[in-house]
Amino acid sequence: MKEKIIQVHDLISPYLHRTPVLQSRLINELAGTELCFKCEQFQRMGAFKMRGALNAILQLTDEQRQKGVVTHSSGNFAQALALAAGSLGVTAYIVMPVNAPQVKKEAVLSYGGHVIDCAPTLQAREETAAAVMAEKDASFIHPSNDLQVILGQATAAKELLESHPGLEYIVAPVGGGGLVAGTILAAQAFGQGCKVVGGEPEAMDDAYRSLQSGRIEGNTGSDTIADGLKTQLGSVNFPVIQSGIEEIVTVSEAEIVAAMRLIWGRMKLVVEASAAVALAAVLKRKDVFAGKQTGVILSGGNVDLSNLPF
Amino acid sequence: MKEKIIQVHDLISPYLHRTPVLQSRLINELAGTELCFKCEQFQRMGAFKMRGALNAILQLTDEQRQKGVVTHSSGNFAQALALAAGSLGVTAYIVMPVNAPQVKKEAVLSYGGHVIDCAPTLQAREETAAAVMAEKDASFIHPSNDLQVILGQATAAKELLESHPGLEYIVAPVGGGGLVAGTILAAQAFGQGCKVVGGEPEAMDDAYRSLQSGRIEGNTGSDTIADGLKTQLGSVNFPVIQSGIEEIVTVSEAEIVAAMRLIWGRMKLVVEASAAVALAAVLKRKDVFAGKQTGVILSGGNVDLSNLPF
Repeated sequence: MKEKIIQVHDLISPYLHRTPVLQSRLINELAGTELCFKCEQFQRMGAFKMRGALNAILQLTDEQRQKGVVTHSSGNFAQALALAAGSLGVTAYIVMPVNAPQVKKEAVLSYGGHVIDCAPTLQAREETAAAVMAEKDASFIHPSNDLQVILGQATAAKELLESHPGLEYIVAPVGGGGLVAGTILAAQAFGQGCKVVGGEPEAMDDAYRSLQSGRIEGNTGSDTIADGLKTQLGSVNFPVIQSGIEEIVTVSEAEIVAAMRLIWGRMKLVVEASAAVALAAVLKRKDVFAGKQTGVILSGGNVDLSNLPF
Repeated sequence: MKEKIIQVHDLISPYLHRTPVLQSRLINELAGTELCFKCEQFQRMGAFKMRGALNAILQLTDEQRQKGVVTHSSGNFAQALALAAGSLGVTAYIVMPVNAPQVKKEAVLSYGGHVIDCAPTLQAREETAAAVMAEKDASFIHPSNDLQVILGQATAAKELLESHPGLEYIVAPVGGGGLVAGTILAAQAFGQGCKVVGGEPEAMDDAYRSLQSGRIEGNTGSDTIADGLKTQLGSVNFPVIQSGIEEIVTVSEAEIVAAMRLIWGRMKLVVEASAAVALAAVLKRKDVFAGKQTGVILSGGNVDLSNLPF
């Protein structure tokens, strides 16, 4: 696996930023431990998802690439696949629900992707994507439940461990499970006994409950401010998470907002609520992280700024 | 002057962060030139003002330091002097108008400063500060019209030129004039023909008009979103600016907000409106900066987040 992740990293690095790792004395004091933050909000298109999207496309054959790629997403992966495909000269078809924010559709279009509207149901998304695949003979790429996507996401933690090899913990948010699964694989390959902890919204705690029951559970909650995590754990990443994660810490909406305000206010970084979930988990379980060198993956910074008070 | 700035930098560096210099491919495309941003929002207490405050205190004699320092400010310098004094074991008396935001008073208190309320007029501020000076025999430190403060602020551009020695322009916001005067001194000492341009809100264009008339003009505008720049050009920094600045570009409120949104949305950095004024000036005068290696000083990131929509 170590060699595989190194190969993937070499393959995708030319199309990525090497994002910085930042620290905050003030947040260290609040957390009672030493934290370092891998700043994927500075990644191209503003989130780690660019890594997995690039790798998934680069693993296709030339013939497959000529026919294009398709996904259904209303979130960061839509933009990531559009930009990754655009960077590689590949056509991207992005199936998005008609009620997706206009700003997200415009972002996909600005990266050169083709937006295909569908009804706002999972069934309609899947059917529309299947129709595009059939018509264009395009390759479907899942936002998180795909080994090549997971291996791409693993490179964020690989970079973090290259700059901070002594990390005892890495904390990542858990949505579909691609980032945390990749983080586990990287920690096992490049860490020195580094453990991985997931942060998950209480309102979307499918991964937390899946670990308890031993099988993939559905989401029952209605909504969370961490909209990037409103996705379902998958069959490819679940076994990786099950066998390799130390713990999943669930956090309330208020804890997510408090962590987000800390990062904005104290670190002066624009991060999306999903990214703040990892810090919220650290602050909730200070006992676990006290005195431990801990890395936190800030997963992205794509916030709708149209509602800001200026 | 070069030796003097080097001495100041050596003196204050142990109490400062070396702030990073960041770039954005997207903003380069929009600006039509290559920009690098000196990120003083990551400085301690969130703004470059920490530099000048530290130097002003460090230049005092031991006897003076034992008696404390006093300033009147409702902005970043209040916090900067409080934190700088606290870091050096000096008592800071900060005269603030009673109507200053509670969050700013709390920040001063959290840094160990003493807040002394006064009526919300310049006269009351000056009289109250004079009373504190008389009672405590404390040293008054002006937020911008003080050579030691200016020399401290100069170290931001010195660092920027150390990492980017070939810069042809540095752009800084103009409020009281301390930062831009220090930037001019640093560009002259450490640059290779590097020119300095100021950005100033149209609504507070005292420096722009002072350059035209050749004498210090007052502000006539009523208000600007760039609240850090709502101050008056001073007699110490004006001659430096007059003799060394290339140009002052004034920008509208809409241009400031647009630049601020670009920095938040594209660079994922929390900056205050005053910091966005410098980028707004670059975007307004693309003709000047086209093809020129240009540094932009992001002066600070202390934004009141209480009105954010989450």
